[in-house]
Amino acid sequence: MVIFAGAYIHQLILLPMTGFNLTNAIELLERTPAVITSMLEGLSEQWTTQNEGPNTWSPYDIVGHLIHGEITDWIPRMKIILADAPDKAFTPFNRFAQFEESKGKTLSQLLDKFRLLRQQNLEYLRSCQLTAEDLTRRGIHPAFGSVTLSQLLATWTVHDLNHIAQIARVMAMQYRPAVGPWVAYLRILQ
Amino acid sequence: MVIFAGAYIHQLILLPMTGFNLTNAIELLERTPAVITSMLEGLSEQWTTQNEGPNTWSPYDIVGHLIHGEITDWIPRMKIILADAPDKAFTPFNRFAQFEESKGKTLSQLLDKFRLLRQQNLEYLRSCQLTAEDLTRRGIHPAFGSVTLSQLLATWTVHDLNHIAQIARVMAMQYRPAVGPWVAYLRILQ
Repeated sequence: MVIFAGAYIHQLILLPMTGFNLTNAIELLERTPAVITSMLEGLSEQWTTQNEGPNTWSPYDIVGHLIHGEITDWIPRMKIILADAPDKAFTPFNRFAQFEESKGKTLSQLLDKFRLLRQQNLEYLRSCQLTAEDLTRRGIHPAFGSVTLSQLLATWTVHDLNHIAQIARVMAMQYRPAVGPWVAYLRILQ
Repeated sequence: MVIFAGAYIHQLILLPMTGFNLTNAIELLERTPAVITSMLEGLSEQWTTQNEGPNTWSPYDIVGHLIHGEITDWIPRMKIILADAPDKAFTPFNRFAQFEESKGKTLSQLLDKFRLLRQQNLEYLRSCQLTAEDLTRRGIHPAFGSVTLSQLLATWTVHDLNHIAQIARVMAMQYRPAVGPWVAYLRILQ
């Protein structure tokens, strides 16, 4: 599956069987803070603090979750994969950490923190000059077992898109009763 | 359901049974061009021109669809509702117009056009100084029959969020094979 073993990040690193391409992944990863800021910064709380019901997340909660991922998930797991140490087991991710960690912070503060952490993490990622061979190296996920670095980085990218779509959905749901019969035409409300 | 009959747009117009609030709807409507531009402007075509398979739309197609809505759907339908003329039937919306109308245009040109049209439409909406009573006035939808102006405006807002989520999903799908076992954790790929 590896085409250009030894190619550096500034060259094309393409794993064509999966569509993964590190350059294109970074294109998306680096714009996510701006996307989420443009969706949420300065919005009234009707949009930012409501969720979809019990045990669901508000846009505010989601930004806290993204921050926790920057600190404990993506880059720490990449470091485990690339380290010389033989133990390749990832630390399990806490999906509820944001409920403690966001306390007392404004949404604007959380957005700033996310932007800063993402910028630092992408600087680090670029500095690693990953080769196509590096992307095939493996770690041990607590539920899935063996996974590759390219799967981890692809997941980081899709995870951003997942939460962008979730923020849109949570806000859309606040208007579910308001659209009347149009609910039938709006997939986001199904 | 109407609380403040005669209240103008710069005051709170709230229909509490549905959650619709004109001020908050405009808060979302006015930021959509910036959100979609931050998602797409300058991205490589791997992200912007791929779709989810036959008879699905790429992000490029979606921006064309949003432009067509600005021209033929939301404000024209509002005008039909508010007009003195007795015929309240909406013109059916063409969901495929963008395939002709976007031809030869770059994504960047489409984003600019969407931003300009949205700005003009919101200027017009604000200039109407809609009252709570106006929001209960009705038009005839080709499929649903009688609908209110507040339902139309709520749908305009949710329609934006629907397509923001769709753009995220279409891009995420390009990496579906790349995430490996993580597909099980990513709702956007289901």
